[in-house]
Amino acid sequence: MTTKNQPLSDLEIASQAVMKPITEIAKAAGIPEDALEQYGRYKAKIDPLKITAHGEDAKVVLVTAISPTPAGEGKSTVTVGLADALHQLNKNVLVALREPSLGPVMGVKGGATGGGYAQVVPMEDINLHFTGDLHAITTANNALSAFIDNHIHQGNVLNIDPRRIIWKRVMDLNDRTLRKVVVGLGGPVQGMPREDGFDITVASEIMAVFCLATSIEDLRERLASIVIGYTFEREPVFVRNLQVEGALTLLLKDAFKPNLVQTLEGTPAIIHGGPFANIAHGCNSIMATQTARKLADIVVTEAGFGSDLGAEKFMNIKARKAGFKPSAVVIVATIRALKMHGGVAKTALVGENVEALLQGIENLAKHVETIRTFGVEPIIALNRFITDTEAELEAVLNWCQENHVRIARTNVWEEGGKGGLQLAEQVLAVLDEENNFSPLYEVTESIEEKVRTIVQKVYGGKDVQFTDQAKKQIAQIEKFGWDVLPICMAKTQYSLSDQPSLLGRPEGFTVTIREVIPKLGAGFLVCLTGDIMTMPGLPKQPAALRMDVDSDGHALGLF
Amino acid sequence: MTTKNQPLSDLEIASQAVMKPITEIAKAAGIPEDALEQYGRYKAKIDPLKITAHGEDAKVVLVTAISPTPAGEGKSTVTVGLADALHQLNKNVLVALREPSLGPVMGVKGGATGGGYAQVVPMEDINLHFTGDLHAITTANNALSAFIDNHIHQGNVLNIDPRRIIWKRVMDLNDRTLRKVVVGLGGPVQGMPREDGFDITVASEIMAVFCLATSIEDLRERLASIVIGYTFEREPVFVRNLQVEGALTLLLKDAFKPNLVQTLEGTPAIIHGGPFANIAHGCNSIMATQTARKLADIVVTEAGFGSDLGAEKFMNIKARKAGFKPSAVVIVATIRALKMHGGVAKTALVGENVEALLQGIENLAKHVETIRTFGVEPIIALNRFITDTEAELEAVLNWCQENHVRIARTNVWEEGGKGGLQLAEQVLAVLDEENNFSPLYEVTESIEEKVRTIVQKVYGGKDVQFTDQAKKQIAQIEKFGWDVLPICMAKTQYSLSDQPSLLGRPEGFTVTIREVIPKLGAGFLVCLTGDIMTMPGLPKQPAALRMDVDSDGHALGLF
Repeated sequence: MTTKNQPLSDLEIASQAVMKPITEIAKAAGIPEDALEQYGRYKAKIDPLKITAHGEDAKVVLVTAISPTPAGEGKSTVTVGLADALHQLNKNVLVALREPSLGPVMGVKGGATGGGYAQVVPMEDINLHFTGDLHAITTANNALSAFIDNHIHQGNVLNIDPRRIIWKRVMDLNDRTLRKVVVGLGGPVQGMPREDGFDITVASEIMAVFCLATSIEDLRERLASIVIGYTFEREPVFVRNLQVEGALTLLLKDAFKPNLVQTLEGTPAIIHGGPFANIAHGCNSIMATQTARKLADIVVTEAGFGSDLGAEKFMNIKARKAGFKPSAVVIVATIRALKMHGGVAKTALVGENVEALLQGIENLAKHVETIRTFGVEPIIALNRFITDTEAELEAVLNWCQENHVRIARTNVWEEGGKGGLQLAEQVLAVLDEENNFSPLYEVTESIEEKVRTIVQKVYGGKDVQFTDQAKKQIAQIEKFGWDVLPICMAKTQYSLSDQPSLLGRPEGFTVTIREVIPKLGAGFLVCLTGDIMTMPGLPKQPAALRMDVDSDGHALGLF
Repeated sequence: MTTKNQPLSDLEIASQAVMKPITEIAKAAGIPEDALEQYGRYKAKIDPLKITAHGEDAKVVLVTAISPTPAGEGKSTVTVGLADALHQLNKNVLVALREPSLGPVMGVKGGATGGGYAQVVPMEDINLHFTGDLHAITTANNALSAFIDNHIHQGNVLNIDPRRIIWKRVMDLNDRTLRKVVVGLGGPVQGMPREDGFDITVASEIMAVFCLATSIEDLRERLASIVIGYTFEREPVFVRNLQVEGALTLLLKDAFKPNLVQTLEGTPAIIHGGPFANIAHGCNSIMATQTARKLADIVVTEAGFGSDLGAEKFMNIKARKAGFKPSAVVIVATIRALKMHGGVAKTALVGENVEALLQGIENLAKHVETIRTFGVEPIIALNRFITDTEAELEAVLNWCQENHVRIARTNVWEEGGKGGLQLAEQVLAVLDEENNFSPLYEVTESIEEKVRTIVQKVYGGKDVQFTDQAKKQIAQIEKFGWDVLPICMAKTQYSLSDQPSLLGRPEGFTVTIREVIPKLGAGFLVCLTGDIMTMPGLPKQPAALRMDVDSDGHALGLF
């Protein structure tokens, strides 16, 4: 993502930024002083109970992307750059983002706060412990595990079957060795032996609960509703049966307040909650979005991966729960990534290749169709890259004209908000138009119908099939009356299908649902397709190897 | 610990307190504005690099106790009350305490910030996530585990023997089921299977490193020196061989800054680091103590459990490393606890029993002797309890007179600093006297000699014996040249001996050292006696069951 010789790294750019005190950012955003809890000079928590709406709630602009490729699309960067551009146009704008997970930061990514001149800062704080929200979620998740195992050890009054506990422990790290473990070894005083495993924290149901709860009371109620496993009689065991929802709520109460930071250009940014979009619903918290909506006129936010994952769940799960309509959707694409969808290897992306580009653009076409299916008009953000050629650019622009799709070129990595002004103008135009948003299905439809709708209307697939195990699980879910919930698909992000290698726009495929897992706290049913990794591993040379602290106490080696 | 009908709970007292903004506390303590990083209104981190000494470094007053009993002695309460009393006497005083661990808070204790009118506040924040220090330590510890397992999985260039990894994972929870686990199950892509276990975070060597490091550079160097295990050739493997000391330092850099809070009476309090005193060295961080010493004239601090554990390590490990002399030592005792040492059951403590008291006072006598052995003059703080009778009080006072020991009665739980004025006057008198402090042994002595000195001079035992395993370990430690380090005894807190049931003042006993474990990062050798629990379990009815959040977002059920 560099356009000059020896350009500055993201960390260098972020470190050189002159940040405004967070009290100043808060004041400009209309946050009253008594609602602000400072965490150092440049971070703060906002008490949502002390925020009063400034008028009509803000319109929501969602930033999504084509199916991601190793070429990189720069979705967070465009999200930040668009907000900065709107800020430059004197709009009352707030950007709402997810919190990075330490696992990927220490593993591969090194950082997840935008890039170049379109970043949120303080970059090193946000990428490390930030205000401790993920640690609070980790702690609540693992405290629940400890309460479950202690309950069994102390006599097991609830008759929990240790073989049927579905609640797993978590860590906010990439640690493959913890995926499958046996706990409780060492004899009778060390607890009951059983199989267990660790997910990464962002895959915890508590992260989903945290992001979908609309108040502290709703948070407690959702925590109480989590199913942790089944009894020997196969009856569900809820957190409320263990009577620990109060303690879990207590562990989360401070984390539950949204965090305020700023972009490099001083646009206020709320960063709060961060579930993955392949295994969870992939959006920042409802508390963050709704707090931002009370304060601003326009809220720019993003959802994880491509529109088949993050945006679909943003529409069908988050917007439905929170009760708002997304007013515009930006789809981020790059010519490089589209060429990969057209069959070009990552190592061969430098040369001009209009043919591959036009083939790969079919992936973009499907994402455009999907957003229109929701009744919202998309705008393509074509994120500039130094290797783009004029012929390639023209091919994309022509395609957009032929298909009556709005497009804007962005250059926010290099130029910040200035590089997003064209996109901002297009977004503002769409915000003035009528909006016919509605979710794609009713929650009262059968599980099979709901999944089929997603597969056909969002993925462009032919049909869906369910394994015997999934069918058994559906029967059980229906028996318990848990089927009246939205679906959270767990699918590979790389393909519109459930086969990671099928790039571009696959057609005629059937998606296989291996398992259906009720998440009654989050309030959705997870449908697993293929092997979805819920605990990543570290690469041979983790990003951590280059990290350090300089003599002034500043971070080194974050990207 | 109640003295009236329906008295307020600690949480109620703490919640009703009118706290001063932390900026005001900082200003009064002489902390420059640019050294302060606020965490909400009532907590802050202090950047030690921005603190300049106000003159001579403060004198250090250590608060320790008799061997703890279930009756409760109130050591933290007296520590806070003494600081408040000195504050009332217009002394420039700071109190330095350990951070509570969430495990005991959720398990039994419910809170660990003093009690009654001698507390540090905000009580609920300090007892929950506080400023995230323990989470940072947990994360650094477990990131190291992930790096170790990833190294083995990715080819094991260092030839680490998975059976000889001594680095364990941690959680800041009481979770017996994690004591002994098998990780890496599930086939070749899920890492190398091996035995592992989880300790509670406060038992992590990183906690000890964190508390004994004197600068960020020293922190990195100590982290690099940690031995994580041995190769197939039985050679030690250090963190520096994995090249992750930079990443671990980065994860700890913010946590490493001491935390500023206040007592109920507005005395500035620094709370930072919190290793257990039975399995680790049991004192707050050197950074905290030394920062406090730069700011104040008197620093009141405590060490865990009785003087045989926390104070011994404070003297022989912490004071030696940090290079200061404790100027006075307070030994906290209660008549109730002394009667338990005299053989009275907890249920029979209400009635007067001078005979048992005089027998139990032998425990106190040994602690007095021990402190004098270090060349420091002790002051007994007899912490008042409603059931104390005049005859019992007189018996203690007579004993003190006969044995020429200073004593002061304290009533800080009920009266705050006012209840500690008598103690404060006694402490001030001792601070004016000459001080002949020295550690009890030289680190250059042999391991056996150093341990024998502690057993004989501190525990009052006859001798020490080493198991065959310990002897083998000592031989190996000497071979590697690691023996020139102080000793960190891991011993039961309930008895001066290594037998928890031997209360009072046992004599003629021999202590058995089962294992000797090098902690080269911390810079000490842990000698394990008996079975020392490094991961507590939860009781049948954990404190968590009564915890909740009220409608204003405040904690319920912390004690």
